[in-house]
Amino acid sequence: MDFNIIRAGRTILHVTDLEKSRAFYDALGFIETASDHENIFYRSIEDHTHHCLWLKKKEEPAVEAVSYKVTSEADLDQLEAHFKKQGLRTIWMEKGSQPAIGRTLRVQDVSGLPVEFFAEIEKAERMLQKFHLHKGAKVQRIDHFNCMVPDVGKAYDDYMNNLGFSCSEYTANEEEQVWAAWLHRKPSVHDVAFMNGKGPRLHHIGFWLKDPLSLIDACDVLASMGLGANIERGPGRHGLSNAFFLYLRDPDGHRIELYNGDYLTSDPDFEPVRWDLDDPMRQTFWGHEAPDSWFNEASRVLDIETGAQIALEEPKLEKKKPTFVI
Amino acid sequence: MDFNIIRAGRTILHVTDLEKSRAFYDALGFIETASDHENIFYRSIEDHTHHCLWLKKKEEPAVEAVSYKVTSEADLDQLEAHFKKQGLRTIWMEKGSQPAIGRTLRVQDVSGLPVEFFAEIEKAERMLQKFHLHKGAKVQRIDHFNCMVPDVGKAYDDYMNNLGFSCSEYTANEEEQVWAAWLHRKPSVHDVAFMNGKGPRLHHIGFWLKDPLSLIDACDVLASMGLGANIERGPGRHGLSNAFFLYLRDPDGHRIELYNGDYLTSDPDFEPVRWDLDDPMRQTFWGHEAPDSWFNEASRVLDIETGAQIALEEPKLEKKKPTFVI
Amino acid sequence: MDFNIIRAGRTILHVTDLEKSRAFYDALGFIETASDHENIFYRSIEDHTHHCLWLKKKEEPAVEAVSYKVTSEADLDQLEAHFKKQGLRTIWMEKGSQPAIGRTLRVQDVSGLPVEFFAEIEKAERMLQKFHLHKGAKVQRIDHFNCMVPDVGKAYDDYMNNLGFSCSEYTANEEEQVWAAWLHRKPSVHDVAFMNGKGPRLHHIGFWLKDPLSLIDACDVLASMGLGANIERGPGRHGLSNAFFLYLRDPDGHRIELYNGDYLTSDPDFEPVRWDLDDPMRQTFWGHEAPDSWFNEASRVLDIETGAQIALEEPKLEKKKPTFVI
Amino acid sequence: MDFNIIRAGRTILHVTDLEKSRAFYDALGFIETASDHENIFYRSIEDHTHHCLWLKKKEEPAVEAVSYKVTSEADLDQLEAHFKKQGLRTIWMEKGSQPAIGRTLRVQDVSGLPVEFFAEIEKAERMLQKFHLHKGAKVQRIDHFNCMVPDVGKAYDDYMNNLGFSCSEYTANEEEQVWAAWLHRKPSVHDVAFMNGKGPRLHHIGFWLKDPLSLIDACDVLASMGLGANIERGPGRHGLSNAFFLYLRDPDGHRIELYNGDYLTSDPDFEPVRWDLDDPMRQTFWGHEAPDSWFNEASRVLDIETGAQIALEEPKLEKKKPTFVI
Repeated sequence: MDFNIIRAGRTILHVTDLEKSRAFYDALGFIETASDHENIFYRSIEDHTHHCLWLKKKEEPAVEAVSYKVTSEADLDQLEAHFKKQGLRTIWMEKGSQPAIGRTLRVQDVSGLPVEFFAEIEKAERMLQKFHLHKGAKVQRIDHFNCMVPDVGKAYDDYMNNLGFSCSEYTANEEEQVWAAWLHRKPSVHDVAFMNGKGPRLHHIGFWLKDPLSLIDACDVLASMGLGANIERGPGRHGLSNAFFLYLRDPDGHRIELYNGDYLTSDPDFEPVRWDLDDPMRQTFWGHEAPDSWFNEASRVLDIETGAQIALEEPKLEKKKPTFVI
Repeated sequence: MDFNIIRAGRTILHVTDLEKSRAFYDALGFIETASDHENIFYRSIEDHTHHCLWLKKKEEPAVEAVSYKVTSEADLDQLEAHFKKQGLRTIWMEKGSQPAIGRTLRVQDVSGLPVEFFAEIEKAERMLQKFHLHKGAKVQRIDHFNCMVPDVGKAYDDYMNNLGFSCSEYTANEEEQVWAAWLHRKPSVHDVAFMNGKGPRLHHIGFWLKDPLSLIDACDVLASMGLGANIERGPGRHGLSNAFFLYLRDPDGHRIELYNGDYLTSDPDFEPVRWDLDDPMRQTFWGHEAPDSWFNEASRVLDIETGAQIALEEPKLEKKKPTFVI
Repeated sequence: MDFNIIRAGRTILHVTDLEKSRAFYDALGFIETASDHENIFYRSIEDHTHHCLWLKKKEEPAVEAVSYKVTSEADLDQLEAHFKKQGLRTIWMEKGSQPAIGRTLRVQDVSGLPVEFFAEIEKAERMLQKFHLHKGAKVQRIDHFNCMVPDVGKAYDDYMNNLGFSCSEYTANEEEQVWAAWLHRKPSVHDVAFMNGKGPRLHHIGFWLKDPLSLIDACDVLASMGLGANIERGPGRHGLSNAFFLYLRDPDGHRIELYNGDYLTSDPDFEPVRWDLDDPMRQTFWGHEAPDSWFNEASRVLDIETGAQIALEEPKLEKKKPTFVI
Repeated sequence: MDFNIIRAGRTILHVTDLEKSRAFYDALGFIETASDHENIFYRSIEDHTHHCLWLKKKEEPAVEAVSYKVTSEADLDQLEAHFKKQGLRTIWMEKGSQPAIGRTLRVQDVSGLPVEFFAEIEKAERMLQKFHLHKGAKVQRIDHFNCMVPDVGKAYDDYMNNLGFSCSEYTANEEEQVWAAWLHRKPSVHDVAFMNGKGPRLHHIGFWLKDPLSLIDACDVLASMGLGANIERGPGRHGLSNAFFLYLRDPDGHRIELYNGDYLTSDPDFEPVRWDLDDPMRQTFWGHEAPDSWFNEASRVLDIETGAQIALEEPKLEKKKPTFVI
């Protein structure tokens, strides 16, 4: 590989009502860096750059792109060469065409997900020690993208073998087929997870919290603001990844995971943790059963060129409700 | 009134397998004061007295008594006189007939619940500052009894008008009939709650935790010990009482609530908080829907004289699942 | 006794700059109920009444009164009769002469402290479940007054024998003289503490926090607002009372204790905990040595009739820095 | 560079009384992997390998080595070649000569510190989800080494330019000389820090905790076990690194930092945070003044060949107590 992907960097979401979205994301403690009638740019409390979440006002909710940060501009060119060779469609978003960010490369990846890469982004004041401005969940940083794809094996192979990701944990069935996999570039449990399911869709964006009590604070604050119905699942703990988790739905149904509790995965001799499809501790180390919505609903993703919704395919592996997804 | 009830003091539970029970209650951080082949006596970490929970090995799970502490021996005599006048059945358990406690008065109360009163109990070392011995939920003290009774109005009137309890919060229907009421002697939200339901039965015993994180620790520890299935509901927050709650089932199905988050109710001008039966925030300020077991299952209570199970009656007020109980 | 004192109820502080005071108390999460150019009235998050802290703009910092709530107006009359019989000076503040409160009785107590009693106070919205408005230390309620007095024995005897207080913990010297005592009406560790020292002065007002992390949040928020210098001592834990504590100085030097960690003291058979003057764990179970300011500085108190500062007397018992005060 | 250092990996400490050391490290929640009359091997709760702390019984307390993990055996050879070219003394510890670890390369680095590198270490059961076995501070992983060296500039240049470290934060004087620097390989605030001071000595080993409350638990547990005197400084927060910190001294005086609160430093465009030597928030964002011991005392380090103590040199830059070290 001639390129270096650093970490999950930002998400671009289409939302239908900016004010409703603002009420929700403000409550969680996101910091608004900039906004106008069509856009809100949010960063988290440890961010030193402009945004990790871009909300665009549109007619329909959708995911325009999930974005990874790379080391340098040269990495973008190498990535383009790689994707072209692989036969994947790519487009360039030149510097200036998007606020606050350098040029970006977008690709419709092997699963049909709209994935973006960037090296340059504007600086912003880091709020980590502005404690009097922290509120709600005190969201500290973007952590990962969780994607439902019809062919997990294909996604797994591509990210592991072609893009340089490592696997921290995975779920396999009796034939040792991968049902779900947690893959990382930064040495945390994951930057991206792929799960067997109707897709391609974005199941959720994960944000890291500094401590477990901030997750409870998020529940209390959302409920007292009348947003309790936006809590979909949790609090609970996943066996897989050790995440103390809370799943929320934003006003357009985009799913946000708040979590705390992963671990360092820097060591080359760290052996990926295998979870059996039938291990009841895998999905829920403890906590209530997940509602059906959590298994069935996810955000539609867009074509990088046309902006149309990418068509869905049924999963290749048999779908089993309690097991196909964390 | 010529007597002074201080607070919820202890519970006597019949359990069928002491070792299974020990594994469960030890995990929560209860301190074992004494035990033999037939009994285990547990205290909480701030207790200065012998026990707040007595497990007796028996053929069938049941509640032998819920006990209140009173100021002095004279209070017991006054209580006996009061109950006799009221026409309720009472018995004395003389000092020496039960380990570690002075004489107790037992009454089958207006709802048919086996209620006990005592003034004297042996001292024990307080473990509040033995932090290295705290574990699990670090259960700090017994707090309340939650009872399902067929006639909440009758129980409410008796405890308020005859026994000197005050009401902190309650649920009423459109006709202003009391569906559920939280009553206290010590200035917390409650020492006892009565809820409309098939009864008399004990819905749960509530124990107070020193902080919200101890409740999360309880979940983690139970799950890692293989006792995750004993978690029935939560974590979540009740609107009513502001409790950050977790409901557990012990190996015999007795329900234990761990909670944190109430407030001081000492003021005579504190106005009881009224919750409408249809207010969705009442039962669950936030959190998953309670499972059916939580609404339908509770511990049977015994006759103070014969030890037989008290017969159940259907509730007087119409039963509505989402509303009849917190 | 023919009167019933319920609990520590409010404090009236003289401050020299309302805006500076507001910045400080707002940061801690006090809720402003009302204010004008001369006054700010604050309540805590669980308060159902108008205020527990009244700041009055004056030329010099001082304590005008520490106030206890009683059950009824009749209690005030009984208290007046009692104090008159005891030969103490009292005055009435008629209803209407102070905002938001009924008539109050003020007495210059046996130690010379200005103590006030009231039964009636205006209601206010309780913010306990308005989680999105909680901030800083999320101060939950007023808890106690800690007073330096020249004759602890005299204060102890009066509050225990004449005013109906109970003792939870105390420090004694080798001759079993009381050096410091923690006394309560509500069943917590204390509503008032008396310590051997130059006085009468108010050492601090204690406020109860809902959990230990709120205390750490207070430190972070004060520091990030540029108020870090207002932290005088802590965090640490006292052996005596088990308080996880933080001591702050407001802009006029009035000392505020934020704490979490006490226990229920409702039982008549609870034996007061005796701490030896030389037990190093008493003052500081763990934590840094207290600075000299903490031992030497305290707020001056006023004459209930003239408003002049009460003259100071040297303590009767020999002053020992590491031991005379918690 | 032809080698890849991953992270701070282990420390080898000489201690004089294994039982005293065991009582201390057990209290903090370290997991004992193996031990005999001469050695104890400890791992942290997320470790998947044999140990991160090796205590050797010896006549005198000392630091035998601080160790970094590298990617592969080939990295060790490349490192040896690099150090030889640089003129530094190295030795090999062949596989089998030390328990549980592959061959290691030791070097007396540019500051005279005994530094070790390894690629291979035995596996051990990861206790991350064995919550019932977590106790005390629940130490989660080794994080960094903090070293006092006479020439910070030299150490900084070598680790940045020759060994591939990046700088997250640093302190500079008016002439822009580096007084102290926080350097990392894994994307946290640091794997190693160098501070201007008499050295070479090891100031402390830092361990990461999963949440702030575990740090308070550590204080409580140490105090209740009679080890309160081992707490040297804290809790408090550093401006530099945002660490919520606690400094302990083990029975031989080796200093351990427990901390929580850093941030991700993976981005190449993250600009090192510069702190002025005179910024009072740098050392102590909030918290008590550090005791003199914290500035003056540190662990002696040994010659990799002779095992003799490395001679101390006075710092090149003028020593200023409140500023020379965090």
